[in-house]
Amino acid sequence: MGEFDLIARHFRRPVKHAVLGGGDDCALIAPGAGMQLAVSSDMLVEGRHFLSTVDPARLGHKALAVNLSDLAACGARPVAFTLALSLPRAEDAWLERFAQGLYALADAHGCELIGGDTTQGPLNLCITVFGEVPAGQALLRSGARAGDDVYVSGTLGAARAALEVFRGTLSLPEPALAIARERMEQPTPRVALGQALRGVASAALDLSDGLLGDLGHVLAASRVGARIEAERVLGCFGLRGAGPLPALGDSQRLECVMAGGDDYELAFTAPPQARAAVEAAARAASTPVQRIGCIEAEPGLRVVQADGTPLAQRFQSFDHFA
Amino acid sequence: MGEFDLIARHFRRPVKHAVLGGGDDCALIAPGAGMQLAVSSDMLVEGRHFLSTVDPARLGHKALAVNLSDLAACGARPVAFTLALSLPRAEDAWLERFAQGLYALADAHGCELIGGDTTQGPLNLCITVFGEVPAGQALLRSGARAGDDVYVSGTLGAARAALEVFRGTLSLPEPALAIARERMEQPTPRVALGQALRGVASAALDLSDGLLGDLGHVLAASRVGARIEAERVLGCFGLRGAGPLPALGDSQRLECVMAGGDDYELAFTAPPQARAAVEAAARAASTPVQRIGCIEAEPGLRVVQADGTPLAQRFQSFDHFA
Repeated sequence: MGEFDLIARHFRRPVKHAVLGGGDDCALIAPGAGMQLAVSSDMLVEGRHFLSTVDPARLGHKALAVNLSDLAACGARPVAFTLALSLPRAEDAWLERFAQGLYALADAHGCELIGGDTTQGPLNLCITVFGEVPAGQALLRSGARAGDDVYVSGTLGAARAALEVFRGTLSLPEPALAIARERMEQPTPRVALGQALRGVASAALDLSDGLLGDLGHVLAASRVGARIEAERVLGCFGLRGAGPLPALGDSQRLECVMAGGDDYELAFTAPPQARAAVEAAARAASTPVQRIGCIEAEPGLRVVQADGTPLAQRFQSFDHFA
Repeated sequence: MGEFDLIARHFRRPVKHAVLGGGDDCALIAPGAGMQLAVSSDMLVEGRHFLSTVDPARLGHKALAVNLSDLAACGARPVAFTLALSLPRAEDAWLERFAQGLYALADAHGCELIGGDTTQGPLNLCITVFGEVPAGQALLRSGARAGDDVYVSGTLGAARAALEVFRGTLSLPEPALAIARERMEQPTPRVALGQALRGVASAALDLSDGLLGDLGHVLAASRVGARIEAERVLGCFGLRGAGPLPALGDSQRLECVMAGGDDYELAFTAPPQARAAVEAAARAASTPVQRIGCIEAEPGLRVVQADGTPLAQRFQSFDHFA
């Protein structure tokens, strides 16, 4: 038995819900009656999606979190995942920490590791995640209609601020840096909110590459436009309560919330008559949501000031470590 | 829109069977009534699973083939797959060829690409494949019983011979080299045979790391042993009909068939009273199968000569490019 078979043992636990877990050629899963299976794959590469210095436990958390965030965006309940892992070498301590972070998040969501692959090579993590959603009830990007409100969950921009600190272009005092770093390395997938929004939201997606760019996907899929209020989005800035941050003026904050990446919050739309239902869903999921604008028939995304005039600032969407 | 979004377009085609394909946060699939979903993930890394000089079309074929082979081993019908791809740079010609090879095999098996991820990084291909199998009918590794026959499909060892040529430890004349290289780069997943063996075979798995090591997984899962006849396995050697190969003596051939890797044939067991049914399954799938030994209650794997005496030769299981 080789080194990498031994490694794989870190990731072998009996399955509780799947019909058959790891150790055979395939795992077997059976969605419940009337359920569809939501499937998403994300690949994380060292130097592009994470730094080599990251705590392996946080990396294990994040690798699964970004996938669970996709399930959340569809309103699916997490069920299972596969993990394919390429590692330069077998370091038992690293793997133990990685598995700890991975399993802690998986267990919190009742999401089982059912199989995968381990091989030698440059560090690369590929997770494919499976969730259940009642047939026809998945939240899609294509359902936004003119007149709908536009919302985001939680807070935005802190992960981008942390990235700028690591890039050396920004300096943050503690505890703002700790908050920012936590947001970058340990994102919280909005799994409960996604499920609570089934039947309420008209469209949804998760924010991985920045609000402006990602919201653009909803607009394109729904063939609509949107008007976003800069003040309201600024109100979602993740370091707002972290004390005075002289290095982060309004334009930098706007850059972070509008074009930052790695937020893993949900952006979603819902008709105005659903506002009470949206608030109820947010309460049920213990996740704050903020209304930031509205969907319009005219294509394009317009960011406006409080007085309705267009914002002059231009943003560059987040492109990881490019 | 970045370079890598453009790349992703090579892999975006409308889905026919899945409920929802790529372009949303998740794909949606719904197994048929009474069906379980078989799931497998395989990751291929440059330099370990393939050479940088490989024809991208062949690489596209192989990346999917090794995954379909896992479905075959479970007796599942291929339905869909996700592709996560890390690429050092965006080369349109490379991607076009890769997609050609990938889609040709996918289309041959009615297996749809439903989603995935594209990112920049060291070349790495991770495919997760989904198949359907009637509930309770999947072929497992754990079903072998003492007295069962042991079979392998197709031919063995040619891919290992090709690898030795690339390693510089073996020289082969044409057309033997062409056959060997084809077997290494374009394996044929035994999808039809796997399905035909449902209800016939007692256990099955696919041969990726070499007959001896892989068969060991069946023995361990089934808590049995096996006696394998060297002569019969030699009869499966993939270059038998390729003319005289003076560089490949009996012991090298045995090494290739017993411990070679990358065969992607099926090894399976079935009770002796199922011999006619096994033959019928092989005919129905147009795939030759060869009986090579039998399962015994005593743990361990015994390779014997025609007269029943133990074979002295020792084998090293295939370990890719290690």
